[in-house]
Amino acid sequence: MARKTIEDLFIHELSDIYSAEKQITRALPKMARASTNPLLSQAFQAHLEETQGQIERIDKVVEITGFKLKRMKCVAMEGLIEEGKELIDEIDKGPVLDAGLIGAAQKVEHYEISGYGTLIAMAKHLGLKNAAVQLLKETLAEEKSADEKLTQIAEQGGNQAATLDK
Amino acid sequence: MARKTIEDLFIHELSDIYSAEKQITRALPKMARASTNPLLSQAFQAHLEETQGQIERIDKVVEITGFKLKRMKCVAMEGLIEEGKELIDEIDKGPVLDAGLIGAAQKVEHYEISGYGTLIAMAKHLGLKNAAVQLLKETLAEEKSADEKLTQIAEQGGNQAATLDK
Repeated sequence: MARKTIEDLFIHELSDIYSAEKQITRALPKMARASTNPLLSQAFQAHLEETQGQIERIDKVVEITGFKLKRMKCVAMEGLIEEGKELIDEIDKGPVLDAGLIGAAQKVEHYEISGYGTLIAMAKHLGLKNAAVQLLKETLAEEKSADEKLTQIAEQGGNQAATLDK
Repeated sequence: MARKTIEDLFIHELSDIYSAEKQITRALPKMARASTNPLLSQAFQAHLEETQGQIERIDKVVEITGFKLKRMKCVAMEGLIEEGKELIDEIDKGPVLDAGLIGAAQKVEHYEISGYGTLIAMAKHLGLKNAAVQLLKETLAEEKSADEKLTQIAEQGGNQAATLDK
């Protein structure tokens, strides 16, 4: 796959994040089931719905731009999701697994935050239609908010676990 | 490797990021050489020095806490760095490669931002000495600032490339 222009880079990055989002929709239900913290489980379920909307936004960006996505697998996301699976396999359900899942999920969120940030920068450089840029920005805002929500749950969960320890 | 307590998770995460930082020190000189944008090349070189300081901070955290790091390879960082190498192999030096390298470097930064964020949350939960938490916070601030600097360079570089296109 040749990447010789910014447009090629943009299409590559968009195809990469499309694959990442698809993988995330398969991982989130497992993470929700593995979590014993109801707030966390709900956050994973809510983010699953958001992720489905994010995939639809990518479809719209493709429609608007006329770009053709490449069939590819985001190997980085595969690795990040694998880390979450290992936690589920290794650790019994409870506050420790929940803390691990939050960390794993935040790595996933940050991969996406950087991916959409790059896409927005490239879209502006390419002078893509504002509607396409706006769609990418909406998703970026959702990813940032999902990351912040996980931080809040980690802080609440930490306090909860600390209370349980006493 | 058993991860049964928050302390085990913390040690695992610290060992993971230690491996990630070491890998980054080997990748940054190559990224600096591959870049034709002097601002970007300087940013990679400056971040190399910062990264060496970040490794020393982890050594200090280990000293303060008495935790023993695990010998492990951060596979996620291996994948992210590999993406950067592919760009260098595939794309001729110039603004397109520079834009790709910025995107790749920002994924690296975001992996670290989430990693140090998780470490800080766990350190607080574990009640680790404030000196250890402060060291982690200093590095987190550096990673965020490195990410912002790359965004600025992308914006400037984009404008520069757009001017060249005319």
